[in-house]
Amino acid sequence: MSSSLEGYKGVALDVLRKIGAEVGDVLRIHKKDGAVYEGVLVPRFEYGDPECIVLKLRNGYNVGLKIQEGDRVEKIGEGVKPAYKPRPIPEAVSGLPRVSIVSTGGTIASRVDYRTGAVTPALRAEDLYSMVPELAEVAQVETKVLFSIFSEDMTPKHWSKIAEEIASELEEGVRGVVVAHGTDTMGYTAAALSFALQNLPAPVVLVGAQRSSDRPSSDAALNLIGAVVTAVQAPFGEVAVAMHRGLSDDVVAVHRGTKVRKCHTSRRDAFKSVNAELLGVVENGTYRQVSQDYRPRSPPGKLKVRPTFDEKAVLVKYYPGFNPEVLEKLLDMGYRGIILEGTGLGHVGSVCLKALERARDMGVFVGMTSQCIWGRVNMNVYYTGRDLQRVGVVPLEDMLPETAVVKLMWVLAQTDSLEEVRRLMLTDIAGEFSPRTSYRWSA
Amino acid sequence: MSSSLEGYKGVALDVLRKIGAEVGDVLRIHKKDGAVYEGVLVPRFEYGDPECIVLKLRNGYNVGLKIQEGDRVEKIGEGVKPAYKPRPIPEAVSGLPRVSIVSTGGTIASRVDYRTGAVTPALRAEDLYSMVPELAEVAQVETKVLFSIFSEDMTPKHWSKIAEEIASELEEGVRGVVVAHGTDTMGYTAAALSFALQNLPAPVVLVGAQRSSDRPSSDAALNLIGAVVTAVQAPFGEVAVAMHRGLSDDVVAVHRGTKVRKCHTSRRDAFKSVNAELLGVVENGTYRQVSQDYRPRSPPGKLKVRPTFDEKAVLVKYYPGFNPEVLEKLLDMGYRGIILEGTGLGHVGSVCLKALERARDMGVFVGMTSQCIWGRVNMNVYYTGRDLQRVGVVPLEDMLPETAVVKLMWVLAQTDSLEEVRRLMLTDIAGEFSPRTSYRWSA
Repeated sequence: MSSSLEGYKGVALDVLRKIGAEVGDVLRIHKKDGAVYEGVLVPRFEYGDPECIVLKLRNGYNVGLKIQEGDRVEKIGEGVKPAYKPRPIPEAVSGLPRVSIVSTGGTIASRVDYRTGAVTPALRAEDLYSMVPELAEVAQVETKVLFSIFSEDMTPKHWSKIAEEIASELEEGVRGVVVAHGTDTMGYTAAALSFALQNLPAPVVLVGAQRSSDRPSSDAALNLIGAVVTAVQAPFGEVAVAMHRGLSDDVVAVHRGTKVRKCHTSRRDAFKSVNAELLGVVENGTYRQVSQDYRPRSPPGKLKVRPTFDEKAVLVKYYPGFNPEVLEKLLDMGYRGIILEGTGLGHVGSVCLKALERARDMGVFVGMTSQCIWGRVNMNVYYTGRDLQRVGVVPLEDMLPETAVVKLMWVLAQTDSLEEVRRLMLTDIAGEFSPRTSYRWSA
Repeated sequence: MSSSLEGYKGVALDVLRKIGAEVGDVLRIHKKDGAVYEGVLVPRFEYGDPECIVLKLRNGYNVGLKIQEGDRVEKIGEGVKPAYKPRPIPEAVSGLPRVSIVSTGGTIASRVDYRTGAVTPALRAEDLYSMVPELAEVAQVETKVLFSIFSEDMTPKHWSKIAEEIASELEEGVRGVVVAHGTDTMGYTAAALSFALQNLPAPVVLVGAQRSSDRPSSDAALNLIGAVVTAVQAPFGEVAVAMHRGLSDDVVAVHRGTKVRKCHTSRRDAFKSVNAELLGVVENGTYRQVSQDYRPRSPPGKLKVRPTFDEKAVLVKYYPGFNPEVLEKLLDMGYRGIILEGTGLGHVGSVCLKALERARDMGVFVGMTSQCIWGRVNMNVYYTGRDLQRVGVVPLEDMLPETAVVKLMWVLAQTDSLEEVRRLMLTDIAGEFSPRTSYRWSA
């Protein structure tokens, strides 16, 4: 099969060959019913209807069109990369507060590959002033490309490197640090940095984009401005995530790093604070503090850097039909800690009790969170919760499951004592517990 | 340690002994700062501050109170069970539509154990008219206690029995079936029944309660009325979940069984339709259809009962630091299918590719869903998604991870052919796929 029509079969392949189209070309498809679609031909994959042609539309979405009798397909051009030339950095910024931007990859640092319609990580950090001219009114940004990886490939080892890099930027006395990051695992990294960097003298603000920065619908510019404004103006010394608050292009929400979660695959306002108020918002270039419960910027010299993580922690989501033998295997694999994502108030089936007893006897920490995501576990209401506590399962209050497994990796790297692991897991280190639950917090 | 003061230690134990209190007694605690708490003394567990006394307050919540110098604890009585005598079933109901209520357990079928403050499943179904007199205006209910278990102990074997019981109730020609169920895994059971029972001649409505029925704040009565009204009046032949729509005690939301999820540990409106409209609502005793996209009641005799599930399907949630060896172990354990709960648009780290290739070579089905919960996976946007499709991972559109693993258990029990497993997983059987995504659907 020709690689220029990768994945296409049957009628679709015939039609595309007839008009001499290749992946990357711009096609216009006239459907018999009068609808017209225009977009870049993208490769297709094994599953799905082989009669479909997949176009990446101008709005950035892919559409699969089944080709039927009476439809007409024409090639109207080849995908062109937009011309791009960075402008020189404006001189006026030299008097503004200094903000370090550490780039790790992700859509905010990416451009669309017009040949395939796919997104690849490519942004050079020095392009920022050209792409987002408003930055020149806010800060003197200094950029550093630390990695250029998809955030789903981020590991605890990367967290350590990011933490160390941020610590070294902070030692330079910058007003704040911004971390450009893919959105997929941005919540996990934000939690990791929250534990690794304590007594922060400045905000550390993670920022990403749900649509890449050379698309008209991109959220990259507003998010980046929001993050830099937060780094300069916010009163807190915490790790935060700055992303669109809603669907309109005007307000950036600033979330606490231990309480934030990506709750939509594609919306610009995918990130939500869970079981917590927003830390703040940025509107019209100004940061406004929302939660009054925050850690202020620490005096310089107080920064505690604890950048290590132990990967012997595992997250297990329970469901009916779950086989407790999976827990046994994890114990055999040498895991030192397990975060259960249980049901409701913090339950797993009683079928798991035996394996959990074994975990206790082996000195393995087991913590309970809820797959409900919102709310607080309470293992005193039902017998199940009480039985689980009897075999040593520790209820983790309103901590997110994702934050809990990150925290456990961090805690396991701080101590070998199970008692100390328990104590640290129940100690609020970076706002991962909310002292009380508001009736307003829900999906 | 005296079992009458189970779990108490230190100062708390001393204080409780001094006043002769036992678990189950009603205590009043005067804090030095003037606050007064009154509630039932409940047992406490290994973790947590031993200086705390835990009371179950009248509102149903537990509070842990640290006893300090200057505080005063008094015993003001023993916990009393409220007197309860069922009334005879009103004669007038005999002319009303017949609704079967199948009870499986859970809070809706439970009473608080006043000795321990814990909730135990105990409701006899014949008590319903006494507890919820309004039912006598809606339906002639026939009740059956199928099991009395906590829903976290529900397994695919229970799903099969519930499906068979419902089928036999439907053969009797009832107007609708209501299933009383614990809320923890109600979403999973609703999905399971949606696949097991097709071409339904009547609604099958699961109902639960977040607060048990003998508490003043209980949601049991409104939910139950909502479920019975839906069973009688709704035009659909589908499996649904009926639960409070909001925090006020007036509207019941009716969710499609394959699109519903418990999204809060304790709120009455914990259940949300995800990536879908509500099927309908019940207000003032009347059912109103909201989604116009539903399967109508099938003609009698068309019911397809496919009540078997194969437990060799496993749900795996990905996170940074995830060890692909876990996938290898699952393959070694003989799983025939894996549902990945990936990040963002449907990704896992490239570190997993080798294990996923092995899965493909072994003929194991691997489907991708998103831990974002809301939105749709799209594995054509990024290289990661395309690489995953190349090794055979099947994107499961906007299906909930929980629904996907239940569907996979059902599909694996229908066929031994991997091709047929793939085809069925991508075929909309019970509304588990929404054809399009609305911008209104998000957390």
